[in-house]
Amino acid sequence: MSEPQLFDRVAIVGCGLIGSSLARAIQRGAMAREIRAYARSAESRGQIIELGIADSVHENPADAVEGADLVVLGVPVGANETIARAMAPGLAPDVTVTDVGSVKQAVIRDVSPYLGSGMHFVPGHPIAGTEHSGPEAGFADLFENRYCILTPPPGTDDAAVERVAALWRRCGARVELMDARHHDKVLAITSHLPHLLAYTIVDTAANLEESERAEVIRYSAGGFRDFTRIAASDPVMWRDVFLNNRDAVLEMLQRFNEDISQLQRAIRWGEGDLLQSIFHKTCEIRRGVIEMGQAGTFDAREPTKQDDG
Amino acid sequence: MSEPQLFDRVAIVGCGLIGSSLARAIQRGAMAREIRAYARSAESRGQIIELGIADSVHENPADAVEGADLVVLGVPVGANETIARAMAPGLAPDVTVTDVGSVKQAVIRDVSPYLGSGMHFVPGHPIAGTEHSGPEAGFADLFENRYCILTPPPGTDDAAVERVAALWRRCGARVELMDARHHDKVLAITSHLPHLLAYTIVDTAANLEESERAEVIRYSAGGFRDFTRIAASDPVMWRDVFLNNRDAVLEMLQRFNEDISQLQRAIRWGEGDLLQSIFHKTCEIRRGVIEMGQAGTFDAREPTKQDDG
Repeated sequence: MSEPQLFDRVAIVGCGLIGSSLARAIQRGAMAREIRAYARSAESRGQIIELGIADSVHENPADAVEGADLVVLGVPVGANETIARAMAPGLAPDVTVTDVGSVKQAVIRDVSPYLGSGMHFVPGHPIAGTEHSGPEAGFADLFENRYCILTPPPGTDDAAVERVAALWRRCGARVELMDARHHDKVLAITSHLPHLLAYTIVDTAANLEESERAEVIRYSAGGFRDFTRIAASDPVMWRDVFLNNRDAVLEMLQRFNEDISQLQRAIRWGEGDLLQSIFHKTCEIRRGVIEMGQAGTFDAREPTKQDDG
Repeated sequence: MSEPQLFDRVAIVGCGLIGSSLARAIQRGAMAREIRAYARSAESRGQIIELGIADSVHENPADAVEGADLVVLGVPVGANETIARAMAPGLAPDVTVTDVGSVKQAVIRDVSPYLGSGMHFVPGHPIAGTEHSGPEAGFADLFENRYCILTPPPGTDDAAVERVAALWRRCGARVELMDARHHDKVLAITSHLPHLLAYTIVDTAANLEESERAEVIRYSAGGFRDFTRIAASDPVMWRDVFLNNRDAVLEMLQRFNEDISQLQRAIRWGEGDLLQSIFHKTCEIRRGVIEMGQAGTFDAREPTKQDDG
C-alpha cells in the first residue's frame, strides 16, 4: 500500500463484528501505526490476541484510548454512556472520537458530555454487517461498496470530519453526511422495523406447538428462511437499537400497522384489485433498489436466496 | 440419461417460473416422450417456442391436454377453476392431473368437480422459486434439493401418487405427503405471512414522501433490501394465494399482531429484558433452519446477503 498513514494510534473500543472488521481493514490498509483494542469479556480479548488484529488489548477503556488520536466506539448503543465515562480519563486533549452505532441521536446525547472542549466527536454508522457477532465474525472487506453515514452535530470541526471520512473511504465505503435525527428516521424504516418484523414472525413461529414448529423449519424455504437470518442478529445490539430509537421505530411501526390493517381487510373481504395494485407498487421499489446497485452481488438470479410459494 | 421415461405425453398448463422450470427438467431428464404447453398470452407462447421447452404450444387448454397421460396445472391458484373447466373436454379418461400451486384446499375444491371418475388428481406444491416470473425466468435446477409436498385427498389411487412423486424425485426434489388443510396452515406461516409482511413494509416505504423514499432505497442494505426482493414476487400469484388461503393467513396474522403488540409495548416502556429474551429465542429457530440444511448454499457467511445496522 503506498497511501499514507491516516492516524498514529487508533483505539477500537468494542471489538465485535464491526469493530474487528474495521481493525482488520485498518491493518490491511496500513492506515495507522498502532491499533489498541478494548473488549469487555476475557473471551473476546483472547480472540483478539489470537486473531492478531490489534497491537495490544486492554480490559479498561481508559487504558485502551490512552494517547490515541482516533477512538472508535463499537459497543452496543446502550453501553455508550458507561463506556464514555470510563474512557474519559484516558483521552488525549485533541482526540477525534467516532462510533459505529445504528442510532445517532442517542450516541450524541450519551457521549458528548464526557468529551473536553478540544476533542472532536464525529458519529458514524457504516451500513454493513452480517447476522454473525463477535471478533471472529469480522472481515476486512465488510465495508466494501457500502454506505457509511456520518452525522456530525453543527459546529463540528471540518478537519475531524474529513479524517473520519477518509478512514471509511479507505475501507471501501461511500461516505455521506446527514443530520442525526434524519438518520434515525430513515434507518427506522430501512433497518430497525425490518428487524423488528423478522424477530416477531420468528417468535410467532416459535410459539407454535412443537410438532408444527418442526415443519416450519423444514419448509422454511418459502420465505420464512430469510426472516430467520435477520432474526439471528445479536440480541443485545438490537435490544439497544429499539430502546434508543424508540420514537422513530414506534412511528414507523404505527404506519406499518395501518398499512397491514388495510391488507388484512382486503384479504377478509376478497378485494383482489386492491391487493394486486399494492403488490404492483412494491415491485417499483425493488426496481429502485436494483438500479441503485444495492441489491447485493448474488441478487440478480440466485435461486437459493428466495424461494416463494 | 439411462433412466426410463415416466410419461408419454405431458401437458404443462401454465408456463410461468414453475411450469417452465418443470418443462426444462422433464426435457433434460428425458422423462416424457412429448411436452405440450398452454399459455394464456401470445407473448408467453412466443417465448416458449423460442426457448424450445415444449414440443407444441396451444392457446386452448383442451388442445394442450389432449391425449396427455400427465397434466400439470401451473396457473395462479385463482385461475384453476376456469382452466379446469376449459381443459375438461380434452382430458384422457385415465389421465393423472397435478398442480404446483401454493394453496392446496382451494385447488381440490376448484379442480376436482371437472375430473371424471377414472381420472386421478394428485395436488402438489414444490417449495421452490425466485422473485422472478414468466417462462424465461425458469431453469431446470430450480427443484434441486427442495421439498415438494403432495396432498392427495383420501382415496386417491396410490399408483397415480407414486407417478407424480417419481416425477419430482427425478427433478431433484424431496417428496413429502401431507393433508391439504395442514399444508395450508404450515405454509401460511412459512411463506404466505412472510410475503404479506414484506409487501406491507415495502408499501409503507412507498407511501413515504418522495425525498425519504429515495433514501430508503439508497440505504436499503440495512435489512429492507431482503424485503424488497420478496415483495417483488408476482402480484397476481400472490393476490390469489391470499384470497384462497384466507382463513389460515388471517389466523396467523392475528397471532403475529398479538406478538408484535407485545414487542411494541416493550419498546415503549423500555422493557429491555423482555426484548432480549425474545431475540434470544428467535436465534434458536435459526439454528434449526441451518441444521436442517435449509439455509441456502450461500448462507453460511455471505456478507452481501444481510447487512444490519
